[in-house]
Amino acid sequence: MEATAEEVDQAVRAAHAATGALADRTVRAAFLRSAAELLDASKDHLVEAADAETALGPVRLTGELARTSYQLRAFADIVDEGAFLGIVIDHPDDSATPPIPDLRRYKVPLGVVAVYSASNFPFAFSVPGGDTASALAAGCPVVVKAHPDHPATSELVASVLRRAAAQHGIPEGVLGLVHGFEAGVELVKHPLVSAAGFTGSVRGGRALFDAAAARPVPIPFHGELGSLNPVVITAEAAAERAEQIGAGLAGSMTLGVGQFCVKPGLVLAPAGADGDRLVKSLTDAVSDTDAGVLLDHRMRDNFVAGVAERAELPDVDAPVTPGAGSEHTVSPGFLTVPAQRLATEGGDHDLLLEECFGPVTVVARYEDDAEVTSVLSRLPGNLSATVHLSEGEAAGQGRGAEILAELTPLAGRVLVNGWPTGVAVAPAQHHGGPYPATTSTSTSVGGTAVERWLRPVAYQNTPEALLPPELRDDNPLGLPRRYEGRQEL
Amino acid sequence: MEATAEEVDQAVRAAHAATGALADRTVRAAFLRSAAELLDASKDHLVEAADAETALGPVRLTGELARTSYQLRAFADIVDEGAFLGIVIDHPDDSATPPIPDLRRYKVPLGVVAVYSASNFPFAFSVPGGDTASALAAGCPVVVKAHPDHPATSELVASVLRRAAAQHGIPEGVLGLVHGFEAGVELVKHPLVSAAGFTGSVRGGRALFDAAAARPVPIPFHGELGSLNPVVITAEAAAERAEQIGAGLAGSMTLGVGQFCVKPGLVLAPAGADGDRLVKSLTDAVSDTDAGVLLDHRMRDNFVAGVAERAELPDVDAPVTPGAGSEHTVSPGFLTVPAQRLATEGGDHDLLLEECFGPVTVVARYEDDAEVTSVLSRLPGNLSATVHLSEGEAAGQGRGAEILAELTPLAGRVLVNGWPTGVAVAPAQHHGGPYPATTSTSTSVGGTAVERWLRPVAYQNTPEALLPPELRDDNPLGLPRRYEGRQEL
Repeated sequence: MEATAEEVDQAVRAAHAATGALADRTVRAAFLRSAAELLDASKDHLVEAADAETALGPVRLTGELARTSYQLRAFADIVDEGAFLGIVIDHPDDSATPPIPDLRRYKVPLGVVAVYSASNFPFAFSVPGGDTASALAAGCPVVVKAHPDHPATSELVASVLRRAAAQHGIPEGVLGLVHGFEAGVELVKHPLVSAAGFTGSVRGGRALFDAAAARPVPIPFHGELGSLNPVVITAEAAAERAEQIGAGLAGSMTLGVGQFCVKPGLVLAPAGADGDRLVKSLTDAVSDTDAGVLLDHRMRDNFVAGVAERAELPDVDAPVTPGAGSEHTVSPGFLTVPAQRLATEGGDHDLLLEECFGPVTVVARYEDDAEVTSVLSRLPGNLSATVHLSEGEAAGQGRGAEILAELTPLAGRVLVNGWPTGVAVAPAQHHGGPYPATTSTSTSVGGTAVERWLRPVAYQNTPEALLPPELRDDNPLGLPRRYEGRQEL
Repeated sequence: MEATAEEVDQAVRAAHAATGALADRTVRAAFLRSAAELLDASKDHLVEAADAETALGPVRLTGELARTSYQLRAFADIVDEGAFLGIVIDHPDDSATPPIPDLRRYKVPLGVVAVYSASNFPFAFSVPGGDTASALAAGCPVVVKAHPDHPATSELVASVLRRAAAQHGIPEGVLGLVHGFEAGVELVKHPLVSAAGFTGSVRGGRALFDAAAARPVPIPFHGELGSLNPVVITAEAAAERAEQIGAGLAGSMTLGVGQFCVKPGLVLAPAGADGDRLVKSLTDAVSDTDAGVLLDHRMRDNFVAGVAERAELPDVDAPVTPGAGSEHTVSPGFLTVPAQRLATEGGDHDLLLEECFGPVTVVARYEDDAEVTSVLSRLPGNLSATVHLSEGEAAGQGRGAEILAELTPLAGRVLVNGWPTGVAVAPAQHHGGPYPATTSTSTSVGGTAVERWLRPVAYQNTPEALLPPELRDDNPLGLPRRYEGRQEL
């Protein structure tokens, strides 16, 4: 089943050959909508296939598929609107230094995009997911490297997308699919691949990032690698609603058996009685949560070993020991540690600042605000950072603004009084963050994800008759643009 | 004079410490305007210093300084307007899949930016140039690696910029300056450096790009490395105005002694009588052009050797032999070759498809349109690509649109009936292109250059009292934004 270098080459060439068929924005918006319709129509079949391979369960998978088709339609709307083209038109201006000629700029597709599927989202971050949807929206054909955890689902979904393409006269090669580790490496090195999107581990993502950067012609590599997703509970918030926060945390960290990239992995909670109540409530809720099946055996082994290594550290307790359940399952749990252990550099406790995939979190108990600041200053980049504030702090009294200012450098999304799991598909979304959260400043969720697959071109003194219609003064396509320094539409 | 690793560290830490002082957009716009004023006020002194180091001449340098202060003011206007913040505000929407919470996104500065000066622009692409201006506009402090061709000018200009900073209470460390090759390497590896901008050679730029990518935490590296800047002269255009085109080409390729990154380095001109007239006119104009001084001895040696190596190739003629003049000067010239020699892979003639810095160009004479297409398909990425069309072709008759479609994949700026030298500072400008023109999809000239030094952050369900004013519903700063799916202002 693993693709040879020759098969990778064929897939990339077939995708490249389909580029022209995506040039018309009307056609590709219709293609994206048909893909959404056909996925919805195949729901039962696809969910069954995905559940058989991932054990994520029909409820979660049905929701994930709905998210996926919603996302395809959202990108179709973005294609129709055309703001992503970034049209700017300047007429000549001899008063500038140097003088400005007639200049008209918009963005064109980069070319074939390689997409690396995630294990934990067989739909939303795999074959028909955000990377594919945004690349097609940009006008870029896609070759997907399937994740080994769901090869059959990947094939099924690919065939659905190809049927949608065929409905609009787009060659099926517009969506290639290859399997195998080596095929993934070949793919990122292929001369006709112009950019890559990746969701997965730091190790795998960094290796592919390095390969993309080492090419004779380097290409953009938009990887989402890993995130600890810190959460700060202020003393006032704990005093106000310790039990509610503890229960909310349990729900978020065990959701999807802890297999979300935005799982809260480090929680700074106050020492003392209010913090104790929070830990008690977390203990109760986690103890009541069933064991679950992880995506594959490697993950299960890593989870069990990762938890054991962390639990052995001095001063680390396990109010609920996470662990191996029956043959395939793992039970959720959490660890506690004095925050002071994480506040200074170089100790073995730095392991607690690395992501551990699966249903476990670390609650670090702090004595004072200075400890919170110290621990936060030591964190690597994150997809999200969260703070729980009291009512008064949320209203602007106390340390709320200060903590938000401390969290902002750490992450691409900052939440107040919520939980990071659940990443909405919306224009204002940002799912990315300082490395290793992502390898670039881009997002893989939300409308601006399309920006990753485009590059600008400016036309200078080009006669009206030869300009693309997008750049003509009379704006025949009615596109939003910056015209003579003013935004139109 | 070369900075030690410790001195680089000090400069970066001083810059980092100045970050907060740039947070207020009003302050940094005022800083940029003061910098422009002080540069203008020091014009005579700065031009004299730069001329002594670069021999570019007072006329060119005065113009370059005017361009530089214009650019600083243009970025001040961009800071004031605030569109670069990319504000998007979405209110909760439960009808979405999954539901959308309150999400508010804008862009924040990345942190300290390393800027690598160019040899050929001691002002416009050096200490006070586009990289520095756009980074400061974004709110990022800068540490510049001076170019060894103009160290004293660099120091002078840095002191002017620091005086401007001091006028607005910004620490002088906001603009660091280091000298030396090793210092440049240290700089790109420094943990507190968040991004880099570079203008220079493919070899130097690629080495720094590789170092940026190999860091434990990789950073964006926006390098402008090299470009051949192909020009196509159609048969009809040559028939219509061969002499005018030949003279124009001579002017563009010898401008600034051929030391522009957008110098036309390969010209596809028709074989036959009209092409002969073009070559004759080019011969006359280039023969009439004085020898000039190159920026340094290394460049002069590379130019002389590069020309000699190219001239020795079979079927290459030199109607005007470019060469060494007196001790410091070089005389302009050009080579001709049958385009057919460049149309297929693997020959020694591929050397003609590499940039040769200095006053030389290659005129490739083609027999038919298929040869033009073949040569274009073999070119690496470029900053610019140009076509000269006849009046009829420019009006839409004949092959104009087809050639534009062939040039667009090759370059970031496409010109019709003009010359690529002269890069206007304008919102619609794009100075970048497929590798090796640039190492990213960004531009180093024009308003959108500011985008390189920012990353998005989204705030989720954040109480009004804690939101940055930029993201509040009542828009107290009057910023352009996308609000509830609609562009405002």
